[in-house]
Amino acid sequence: MEQQLHEYKELIEKELETALYCPENFKVVEAMRYSTLGGGKRIRGALVLEFCRVFGGNVNTALCVAGAIEMLQAFSLIHDDLPCMDDDDFRRGKPSCHKQFGEAEALLAGDALLANAFNSAAASIFLPKSEGLKPQNAVSVISTLSNATFEMIKGQQLDMDFEGIAPEKISEDELIGMYNRKTCALISAACVCGAICADTSDKNLHLARGYGVALGLAFQIADDLLDFESEKTGKKTYPVLFGKKKAVEKSREYTDTAVKIAGKLREGEFLRELAITLNKREV
Amino acid sequence: MEQQLHEYKELIEKELETALYCPENFKVVEAMRYSTLGGGKRIRGALVLEFCRVFGGNVNTALCVAGAIEMLQAFSLIHDDLPCMDDDDFRRGKPSCHKQFGEAEALLAGDALLANAFNSAAASIFLPKSEGLKPQNAVSVISTLSNATFEMIKGQQLDMDFEGIAPEKISEDELIGMYNRKTCALISAACVCGAICADTSDKNLHLARGYGVALGLAFQIADDLLDFESEKTGKKTYPVLFGKKKAVEKSREYTDTAVKIAGKLREGEFLRELAITLNKREV
Repeated sequence: MEQQLHEYKELIEKELETALYCPENFKVVEAMRYSTLGGGKRIRGALVLEFCRVFGGNVNTALCVAGAIEMLQAFSLIHDDLPCMDDDDFRRGKPSCHKQFGEAEALLAGDALLANAFNSAAASIFLPKSEGLKPQNAVSVISTLSNATFEMIKGQQLDMDFEGIAPEKISEDELIGMYNRKTCALISAACVCGAICADTSDKNLHLARGYGVALGLAFQIADDLLDFESEKTGKKTYPVLFGKKKAVEKSREYTDTAVKIAGKLREGEFLRELAITLNKREV
Repeated sequence: MEQQLHEYKELIEKELETALYCPENFKVVEAMRYSTLGGGKRIRGALVLEFCRVFGGNVNTALCVAGAIEMLQAFSLIHDDLPCMDDDDFRRGKPSCHKQFGEAEALLAGDALLANAFNSAAASIFLPKSEGLKPQNAVSVISTLSNATFEMIKGQQLDMDFEGIAPEKISEDELIGMYNRKTCALISAACVCGAICADTSDKNLHLARGYGVALGLAFQIADDLLDFESEKTGKKTYPVLFGKKKAVEKSREYTDTAVKIAGKLREGEFLRELAITLNKREV
């Protein structure tokens, strides 16, 4: 799994490098490249590629879409770090985009990555004939990405709303509902878009979505637990609201769901291992 | 022309009202609606509809796309008004989005409008059969919108760069190049997208683009002249850099180009009148 993930990561880096190449000298492009290239685990992009492969598609067909997902992820991190949002000075051990380039550039770089994600997805129909995405499927991918982005934004809104609410007033369902939007929307969109690239059945799209949601929830709660252990969190996360023991159980439960779905797939070994490894936060 | 423009405006308002309807109660959706509905001349949306009609298409086919263009316009205005950009407290006589809802909400509302524009464009393939856009054309529309947004952002970057440059160091070509991106990209994208909705020839797409660029330049310089007259401008605009007389000439010249292109179209009367009226800034 780790070897395959590494190969996917290299393919995605190369794709992003090409997609974000600009012959002109724009500071905004520099900021886009700074925040998108050469970092990140590329889990979302890898999910696009693997779900395409698992359902019998050509990985090359899905590359533009994997790049698009990673651009959306980069956009969301840049805007989340802005002073009016989380006001984070660092991201992956280096200055965050607005610290490096200023707020105006970070705003524009996020906007430009969001816009360009859709152009990357659209470009998938122009690949050499045997690898090109059907226009109908490209539209489905674009619609899925757009919806996921809107869900992510609504999740961000709910997270902000929770800040003003007493912890005991937030139910488990409400917290999971927020995670579903903030974290799972883009992860499950990655899985679904990969499956669309393979031109597969609605039943398989449904499996992809289920895997993505379960993986996203397991991932988010495992992440919360890391923050909880290191006492870094000031936010209303699962372990903060419902205790460490229940959080560990929940994260395992969602991992089991993802593993079970992966078990239904003909070559689901990568996806099975990924779910188990992510739950341990070893990648 | 005014009557037709009014009808288009009503169709677009209705389309946006539906597209931005959300049964859940989200502050970000309220902010999106606040900044998008019930204001604006809807010139860009009207250009989508009219270019579709002129090239023999069904106006209903183009409605989703007209809505998408107006969402992109609303996104750009919300983000342009933010404190880290132009820091404007008012827009169309009411408080700007961040003044009304706070910076975080304005950031998210702009992001969400940008993302949703692509979903609106994608939705055009799901119209009743005779009105639905071909998937291939929907992808072209999405690609055109994405490119135009990136051009608009690069234009914003150039405008910011000009602030630090001595006026005499900016050539006419450089200023027009900036206007081409900042103002004309979205206007010409509106014209081209309308033509794509009519499933017309490359020759006609070329005419649509040419009209849009000329109209955009005429419109921008006429706007600069209004600011110049009222001594509102601190920016490096055409009349500030090259004098009022030359600005009036240039605006007329670009209007003539647009009028000439409209004259080549079988039913180009609306587009001809629009160019003339916009140059007088009467709508």
